[in-house]
Amino acid sequence: MLTTNELNDFLASVFPQSNCVVEYTDQAIIRVRQPIGESDLRPGGTVSGPTMMKVADVALYVAVLNAKGLIPLAVTTNLSINFLNKPSADKDLIAECKLLKMGRTLVIGEVSIFSKGSNIPVAHATGTYSIPPVKN
Amino acid sequence: MLTTNELNDFLASVFPQSNCVVEYTDQAIIRVRQPIGESDLRPGGTVSGPTMMKVADVALYVAVLNAKGLIPLAVTTNLSINFLNKPSADKDLIAECKLLKMGRTLVIGEVSIFSKGSNIPVAHATGTYSIPPVKN
Amino acid sequence: MLTTNELNDFLASVFPQSNCVVEYTDQAIIRVRQPIGESDLRPGGTVSGPTMMKVADVALYVAVLNAKGLIPLAVTTNLSINFLNKPSADKDLIAECKLLKMGRTLVIGEVSIFSKGSNIPVAHATGTYSIPPVKN
Amino acid sequence: MLTTNELNDFLASVFPQSNCVVEYTDQAIIRVRQPIGESDLRPGGTVSGPTMMKVADVALYVAVLNAKGLIPLAVTTNLSINFLNKPSADKDLIAECKLLKMGRTLVIGEVSIFSKGSNIPVAHATGTYSIPPVKN
Repeated sequence: MLTTNELNDFLASVFPQSNCVVEYTDQAIIRVRQPIGESDLRPGGTVSGPTMMKVADVALYVAVLNAKGLIPLAVTTNLSINFLNKPSADKDLIAECKLLKMGRTLVIGEVSIFSKGSNIPVAHATGTYSIPPVKN
Repeated sequence: MLTTNELNDFLASVFPQSNCVVEYTDQAIIRVRQPIGESDLRPGGTVSGPTMMKVADVALYVAVLNAKGLIPLAVTTNLSINFLNKPSADKDLIAECKLLKMGRTLVIGEVSIFSKGSNIPVAHATGTYSIPPVKN
Repeated sequence: MLTTNELNDFLASVFPQSNCVVEYTDQAIIRVRQPIGESDLRPGGTVSGPTMMKVADVALYVAVLNAKGLIPLAVTTNLSINFLNKPSADKDLIAECKLLKMGRTLVIGEVSIFSKGSNIPVAHATGTYSIPPVKN
Repeated sequence: MLTTNELNDFLASVFPQSNCVVEYTDQAIIRVRQPIGESDLRPGGTVSGPTMMKVADVALYVAVLNAKGLIPLAVTTNLSINFLNKPSADKDLIAECKLLKMGRTLVIGEVSIFSKGSNIPVAHATGTYSIPPVKN
């Protein structure tokens, strides 16, 4: 298991354009926070679907790193997301990821996304990461 | 059915931050092109998953508009994407959407995404849009 | 909220061919048990994927009934399932469903499936039911 | 590539309880037919969701066998299905599967399902099969 500092440093090196922050990790879940800016908003005063999908993908990636170590080349093979409720336009998004399966080559997890300060989920995603085989 | 100009004008008004371009529409399919910039790239010389998800969502939205008229408040309820092959870092993404069902309240479509100039799909998505009821 | 007896009677009337049993309901979750017979097995001593999909669909349907009342015409619009671990061939399946969203026209839930007696999930599904409009 | 006879014989040996029939294969698609009986029906004169999911899974499995050879232990890791239109209660189901990706360890395909004689899809699924590593 890695510290949030180690995970944030690694994210910054592989995704310099991302401003998503790892806030908490333990053996069961990880939590990230996505600051929301103008470019994340949709007409009607809400956060865009693609921003929620991006957060789901990052949360899943962080959970994979937390479980498997700093593997840059893990890739998403599948992501399925349900949009549940309108997020607040003026709140950060909080995403929590729990791994459902940690196989040798496939890791599957689920992500719940909230507007900060609320416990009503705005979206729920499940996704699969493929882990590259270790070369000997 | 709308012209590509009408669709591009509408997209620019509701998603001013998007630079995705509607290139083609007919009754069966629509096609959009997503220019790829630095912020869309991932280490390893490829396009990030979230950029492909964003393109899938926009393509589906354009297909809904093309079929149903310029409804700003249509919202994605579900999107499921499979990542198939690595996109080229130096090519635009092309996404083609075909509607599978056009119900009164739910529209379901599938999207195939390609690197421009290639006919090998890099991702395939299916998604559902919910159409707000018409007020009388 | 309905009793397990009311739900089992209703299931028997609309799905006479099913032998799935509602075992528990409260406001947050419902639980069903699927007896496993010869026709549910796959070579290699495990339960077939279609049996797990069927259980996921029934669990979601029971959760919809529990939340919305005995609506026979609610229909699945989408179901996505991840297979996580091999179920035991000689154990019943237990499925627990929690609703993620209870809208007026769409209900979304998640289902975790276990081999009876184990707390390691064998599959995880999310699905959407469409609720027919109430005629006045 | 295998003949439909070889595929049907193999299906009968690994799924003796299935009565799904492989009708056509070529390098691009495979087609199966699922006879519909009493136990597949739902109130309202239609085919049940679980029967459609089962057909989607079998079609995908047949496409994997057709592409990779008679591998009994290939397993579904993920299946996502959208239900589009009500199938006829008195028609067989026809499912066509096209592979989207044929990787070394993961095969991804899409399946369109029809009531026999109609070209309006009743369901559309995508799924992933995991291919066990070859032992040397």
